[in-house]
Amino acid sequence: MPSFNTIEWKENTVVMIDQTRLPGEESYVECKTYEDVADAIKRMVIRGAPAIGVAAGMGIALGAISLRTTKRDEFTAEVKRIAGVILGTRPTAVNLAWAVKRMLGILDAAEGDVEQLKSRLVGEARYILEEDIDTCKRIGQTGAGLIRDNSIVLTHCNAGALATGGYGTALGVIRAAVEGGKKIEVIATETRPFLQGARLTAWELDRDGIPVSLITDNMVGHIMSKGMVDAVVVGADRIARNGDVANKIGTYTISVLAKSHNIPFYVAAPMSTIDFDCPGGDSIPIEERSPGEVTHISGIRIAPEVNVYNPAFDITPNENISAIITEKGIVVKPFAVNLLKLRE
Amino acid sequence: MPSFNTIEWKENTVVMIDQTRLPGEESYVECKTYEDVADAIKRMVIRGAPAIGVAAGMGIALGAISLRTTKRDEFTAEVKRIAGVILGTRPTAVNLAWAVKRMLGILDAAEGDVEQLKSRLVGEARYILEEDIDTCKRIGQTGAGLIRDNSIVLTHCNAGALATGGYGTALGVIRAAVEGGKKIEVIATETRPFLQGARLTAWELDRDGIPVSLITDNMVGHIMSKGMVDAVVVGADRIARNGDVANKIGTYTISVLAKSHNIPFYVAAPMSTIDFDCPGGDSIPIEERSPGEVTHISGIRIAPEVNVYNPAFDITPNENISAIITEKGIVVKPFAVNLLKLRE
Repeated sequence: MPSFNTIEWKENTVVMIDQTRLPGEESYVECKTYEDVADAIKRMVIRGAPAIGVAAGMGIALGAISLRTTKRDEFTAEVKRIAGVILGTRPTAVNLAWAVKRMLGILDAAEGDVEQLKSRLVGEARYILEEDIDTCKRIGQTGAGLIRDNSIVLTHCNAGALATGGYGTALGVIRAAVEGGKKIEVIATETRPFLQGARLTAWELDRDGIPVSLITDNMVGHIMSKGMVDAVVVGADRIARNGDVANKIGTYTISVLAKSHNIPFYVAAPMSTIDFDCPGGDSIPIEERSPGEVTHISGIRIAPEVNVYNPAFDITPNENISAIITEKGIVVKPFAVNLLKLRE
Repeated sequence: MPSFNTIEWKENTVVMIDQTRLPGEESYVECKTYEDVADAIKRMVIRGAPAIGVAAGMGIALGAISLRTTKRDEFTAEVKRIAGVILGTRPTAVNLAWAVKRMLGILDAAEGDVEQLKSRLVGEARYILEEDIDTCKRIGQTGAGLIRDNSIVLTHCNAGALATGGYGTALGVIRAAVEGGKKIEVIATETRPFLQGARLTAWELDRDGIPVSLITDNMVGHIMSKGMVDAVVVGADRIARNGDVANKIGTYTISVLAKSHNIPFYVAAPMSTIDFDCPGGDSIPIEERSPGEVTHISGIRIAPEVNVYNPAFDITPNENISAIITEKGIVVKPFAVNLLKLRE
């Protein structure tokens, strides 16, 4: 396990590591109300789809336990209102909606009085966290076998403990390999424009004593050509049923380079990331984000006011992927057939 | 021609655009003494190998005309001392040493009194500038035929007017195509860690009304996969006699992506960049620069204190290059044979 907690439920308080202050400062935010949690999600104190899901659940639980009413219908109405506030923090995050729906399911299904509902909501929120960590650990253990002892693994963006409940998907595979006694070094790409690799992955691995070297994104080809990369492991934002993967911008570039250098390219993600309704990468819309993310760094302008492209994600086609690592097992080609099998 | 002057000799003053203030501010530095020029080179007011060569020549000329002596041997000794100061500003720059040597050649060869020598030194410095612009224009005119009308050209780093006497190599090809009436759009990669693409190429093209879009380096694969790039044109720091090219870090990554997407990849450089004593890319040492360039942007720390790789250049193997564009013509494969032919 990591040496820090990304998010934790502690005596009716939600404690999160403040990711806006990393890597300069390791500090923790204590959320005592659901408004505190909503604010933390908005301000990106916590980010990463699974981590946001956990925070959403805990935010609703915090809101619920603070309610004074003993009338169940009043209580339910209030919790739904609170859930709406939490849901509005980052409207596009899939896991946020999923966690909110799951928490509201408790209200619909469970019998009992308001005190019992409160207890069940808190329990559910804590269970979402436990479940996420457990899923990531199983992804890690499943994937660790693919990582050779004494090898160098390149990763992109942050698919680590900081992006999840506290173990990570891509970095979960690396953690599990290290916990299994293997000597692994990691190369982290800085991941422009948001610098999640430089700010978060480098910090997270360094914090846990896993050797990490930082490079700019455009060094990947050179580093691979020097024989310095044995495998690539990345996370995924969404996987189509044919195995095409949407992930942080830059992932596709790395997959082409890996293929060209005969380096295995692995994607680590929970089953919940696989969208069986999505036939292929062409059907996944790519979010275009604000030009300011490219033209400014830490608030400082680095470019003139010219046209900017800023796609947040790209699509890695299934042919560039060696295997997809899930908590239910390792999936190899043909992905269209083998992903479906795993679902059954 | 560009709408601005990178460097100019104007009434015994050397005027340079201040590249440390771009893109935020377009201001010009007036150097009235050789010390001013030395300082400007040191502070990177002017950068880019050919541009530094021009500045060195003009710096020596400025120093020479300020000397009071009428004795030729005293004059020669003083100019050599000044040349030493100029040479010490950026000791590794090849063009700097070349320009200094060329200026000192005037002292050895030319007859005449001190006043005549002064005039010849000023003439030589101005001729180095004219010659550089002329070479770049010929590179541009030669290469323009490779660029189709209504096409999108991707470039990396800054091989533009700002890096040369005032026309550019890679951007010279684009300028010549545009001057020839073609409609060209440019995609500029930001070029971490130094951001020459974001700071200089985007500014230079925008200033001259050539449409330019800025992307982060890791977007190249995605942009190419969307059919948004018709050709790549980059400069070169050194070309081996087999056609392997050393250029700004990230060039190799782009060459692999271009090959994978069947996009032509052109290198534009003067004949003086070809090192016929160098058999191939393996013989070119890659300078490793300070980690601080990667961990800090505009003085702000963006990463924890972890290990950093920071190679300044990479090697693009000849098989990834479609053609090399020089002032003497376009060179195609086999480069080992055809580069030698061009030399003759």
